[in-house]
Amino acid sequence: MKLSNYLIATLKEAPSDAETTSHQLMVRAGMIRKIAAGIYNFLPTGLRVFRKVENIIRDEMNKAGAIEVMMPFVTPADLWQKSGRWDIYGKELLRLNDRAERDFCLGPTHEEVVTDLVDREVKSYKNLPVTIYQIQPKFRDEIRPRFGVMRAREFTMKDAYSFDVDEMQAERSYLNMFDAYKRIFDRCGLTYKAVEADSGNIGGSFSHEFMVLAETGEDLVLSCDSCDFAANVETTSVRVSLNDKSPEKLLPKEEIETPNMTSVDEVTGFLKVDSTLIVKTLVLETDTGLVAVLIRGDHELSITKLKKFLDVNLLELAEKEVLKKHKIVKGFCGPVDLDIKIFADNSIKELNNFITGSNKPDSHIRNVNHGRDFEIQSFGDFREAVDGDLCPCGDCKAKLASTRGIEVGHVFKLGTKYSESMNATFADQDGKEKNYYMGCYGIGVGRVVAAAVEQNNDKDGIRFPKALAPFEIIIISTDKNEGDSLSKASEIYDLLLENNYDVALDDRKESPGIKFKDAELLGIPFQLRIGPKSLEKGVVELKDRLLGNVLELDKDDLQGIKDKLDELLR
Amino acid sequence: MKLSNYLIATLKEAPSDAETTSHQLMVRAGMIRKIAAGIYNFLPTGLRVFRKVENIIRDEMNKAGAIEVMMPFVTPADLWQKSGRWDIYGKELLRLNDRAERDFCLGPTHEEVVTDLVDREVKSYKNLPVTIYQIQPKFRDEIRPRFGVMRAREFTMKDAYSFDVDEMQAERSYLNMFDAYKRIFDRCGLTYKAVEADSGNIGGSFSHEFMVLAETGEDLVLSCDSCDFAANVETTSVRVSLNDKSPEKLLPKEEIETPNMTSVDEVTGFLKVDSTLIVKTLVLETDTGLVAVLIRGDHELSITKLKKFLDVNLLELAEKEVLKKHKIVKGFCGPVDLDIKIFADNSIKELNNFITGSNKPDSHIRNVNHGRDFEIQSFGDFREAVDGDLCPCGDCKAKLASTRGIEVGHVFKLGTKYSESMNATFADQDGKEKNYYMGCYGIGVGRVVAAAVEQNNDKDGIRFPKALAPFEIIIISTDKNEGDSLSKASEIYDLLLENNYDVALDDRKESPGIKFKDAELLGIPFQLRIGPKSLEKGVVELKDRLLGNVLELDKDDLQGIKDKLDELLR
Repeated sequence: MKLSNYLIATLKEAPSDAETTSHQLMVRAGMIRKIAAGIYNFLPTGLRVFRKVENIIRDEMNKAGAIEVMMPFVTPADLWQKSGRWDIYGKELLRLNDRAERDFCLGPTHEEVVTDLVDREVKSYKNLPVTIYQIQPKFRDEIRPRFGVMRAREFTMKDAYSFDVDEMQAERSYLNMFDAYKRIFDRCGLTYKAVEADSGNIGGSFSHEFMVLAETGEDLVLSCDSCDFAANVETTSVRVSLNDKSPEKLLPKEEIETPNMTSVDEVTGFLKVDSTLIVKTLVLETDTGLVAVLIRGDHELSITKLKKFLDVNLLELAEKEVLKKHKIVKGFCGPVDLDIKIFADNSIKELNNFITGSNKPDSHIRNVNHGRDFEIQSFGDFREAVDGDLCPCGDCKAKLASTRGIEVGHVFKLGTKYSESMNATFADQDGKEKNYYMGCYGIGVGRVVAAAVEQNNDKDGIRFPKALAPFEIIIISTDKNEGDSLSKASEIYDLLLENNYDVALDDRKESPGIKFKDAELLGIPFQLRIGPKSLEKGVVELKDRLLGNVLELDKDDLQGIKDKLDELLR
Repeated sequence: MKLSNYLIATLKEAPSDAETTSHQLMVRAGMIRKIAAGIYNFLPTGLRVFRKVENIIRDEMNKAGAIEVMMPFVTPADLWQKSGRWDIYGKELLRLNDRAERDFCLGPTHEEVVTDLVDREVKSYKNLPVTIYQIQPKFRDEIRPRFGVMRAREFTMKDAYSFDVDEMQAERSYLNMFDAYKRIFDRCGLTYKAVEADSGNIGGSFSHEFMVLAETGEDLVLSCDSCDFAANVETTSVRVSLNDKSPEKLLPKEEIETPNMTSVDEVTGFLKVDSTLIVKTLVLETDTGLVAVLIRGDHELSITKLKKFLDVNLLELAEKEVLKKHKIVKGFCGPVDLDIKIFADNSIKELNNFITGSNKPDSHIRNVNHGRDFEIQSFGDFREAVDGDLCPCGDCKAKLASTRGIEVGHVFKLGTKYSESMNATFADQDGKEKNYYMGCYGIGVGRVVAAAVEQNNDKDGIRFPKALAPFEIIIISTDKNEGDSLSKASEIYDLLLENNYDVALDDRKESPGIKFKDAELLGIPFQLRIGPKSLEKGVVELKDRLLGNVLELDKDDLQGIKDKLDELLR
């Protein structure tokens, strides 16, 4: 590619709405442009990286025996009604009407469409197992799209679905995809971890997330050094640890004035107590009404765990208006005299004489005790695990440590959730109709690109792994004018192009400084710099973006230049 | 690909809604499946053909210097409001609201998005010309989706857009794409014609359609044998031919009873006159009110020509209720005493004593004459050209002949239509801001697949051109059981796979008859048949799908088999 005929859209400044490094760098490098909230154009250099990820995924899916199809983006409501998700999928499912007022939605995922497809085409156990995939745009109407293409509304996903005769075979298909995912992320050159995760509203019994590790990642992963355990903080089980201090004598409760103090920090600062003595009362709306949950002041609620425990789809903090009806004052909620069901995290079990809100404005209560002052419906593991919690494996007594990550892939065991609700069956060996055992497997293509940037960058820009860079090599003629430098650059460019290198020639009429900066920003692994000074010395310079070093190569030894690049790239 | 692990979904019968050959064959061959009106799944074999077309297009676009990007499917209303098309694009533009009630539409084409993109990124004449393309799904909410993926609502399009400094350069970009299109359809192995066409609601001054010729094509193309002229019947100009008969004496008009006779055929049959003596009066609704147009009984109105002449966006036959208000009876319209403007095709100019409707139920009028009985606002070229009309080039006196075709590609000169309405400019050499000169260029990927099927088939199924077949070669083990046939088949399969042939092995436990039928139906150019009988003779059989002949090749001379396939395929 000659850059004089190309669209290089680098910028000096990142837009003000770009919060994360990858978002900033992808915009500055001219890889993406926003056209509406969560909706992006992929510009030429961005699309080159995108296509490289896409090709690696397709290649490994084919090698794993998965079969490519293409399902539509606009999907009819009847399939979603059949599975029951039309009603329970929230606003992320963008519903629309066609000119005849029929209901459709933009596919956020394709379990319904693919189950219908396989049910119609694969009728016998003889044709199972089968794993079907596509690489295709999706839409999820996120309430808060952010971080560029990391959490976009329209995005491209590789989604695969396996169909098996029984659970054991389904386990094999799951592991087959799990292994394919490892090969995909290995080939992309990313540092990642596969961790246990929640299944969300896809449903199903078990799942793993593939996390690209990056300090600035949105997800928190806990892992154990002494065993294999690794899981998303949302789902990591917390082992009930016995409190070593003996229970205190119950003291009489006492109301205390705490004007305008609604946060744990404010209350502990004012009362000069430890946050482990505070108990937060969170009031939440669910499908089946309001509930309250008690969490210790230093802990965070895991929405995922509580949802699973209560077996509800909706679980959101109640609005001020709803609280009012129950005579609860926002910021001062407490369990005493509360007329809704109360659940409590296991950590509250042995706690006594704690501090809670009073349900009155500007006051808290000291020396509150469950059993005496209010009743708890049920204790459970409702908090997010934290750094230092004990490994939940049971055998090892090691502590968990946290890392941040970005979810780029997700594999789920679905069991018969969809085949049952949609009545999708095959004829088994004995002629009986049985429901398929399913699995589903997603990779966000654009998100892999963003995660690669988030994991690999420095002050000068992106440091792409070789397999993902928009070009492997950029030849930079450092002379603005046409002349010997450009001739030599063109000569080497033609040679490399003939030999199928992924090479760009920066023949733009720009200063060397701009050309170098763009090459660094775009994260191209090797720069071949050619200018009057180096030619006079009889050399061309080869800069390694990752190592930072510069080699001098004989300008006339084309075979030598090619051999060196071969050594570095292949 | 081993078919025992693949999804072959061939059917004996085509669905009842499949009217065209390609629709029937694509469903029967298991290439596509409908999931809603105009919305399809591409099954594995269909997608293989689709990807081959896609790859040829991408390769030739890149060679022509076009730059690939990816724009979104869901596009924000503001861009369409800026160009003015939000209001004038009809119901084919599927509008929707996101969760925040903001207006969006599913992109039916991307002039707006790309003009905005280029306007933001390409600021100087130095970076022009630039041609940008994508291969991406589109949605057009057709009132009558039909013919399978030929006229689907959701479909994948390669859409390219050129941006130039002036009209002369834009002409060059247009020709560059025109030539790329020829290479694309040549490589696909299709017989096609590039013809002059109408620009529709894309707008712009000039366009060509690429028509794949097929007897069952939806479009009628007229072309001249003595010169280069070829055009869609919708736009072919009709040369005014002087009538050789001298005008007759005007006779007094006379009402005649024609009970229930509303068609030209009924009236001519009843009155025993030639259809050239009938004048049809069509009443049409437009943006600016009702108009009537007169067309001779043996001719058809060209909506395209009349729209252009009247310069309107809307032009539809008026509904019965609208006619009633003007005291016109449907089926008996006539120009006498009509209170709306009347336009007439040039062929009416020299006609006299003709027959028209009377505007009363069940009667016509004989000996009607314009000038005497009613006034014509304007004559013009309003009819579709037909077989035998004179070539409109002006120089040659040859007659036009018609062929049927399927539009697979369309190239348009847009001029400054979009850059003006969207105020998209670049800085010219003299520093002045000027509007880009644009062109746009589309190819329907799925439609190319369907057109290839429509053009290439016989009683046994599809006869794919070599470049498009789902596989180039299928090796068929004609023995249901595992044994020598399957071993030999596998041996040759492995060899061909290693040498990068696009080969399938039919190792299914099916009868030879089913395997042969599937291979023929799917249009695979070469079958290598291996069974106990041929092995006993020391040979394997090579059947050529296109020529129909069968060659016998030495079963142990693997190099010889490979050489033969090389000779036939490369």
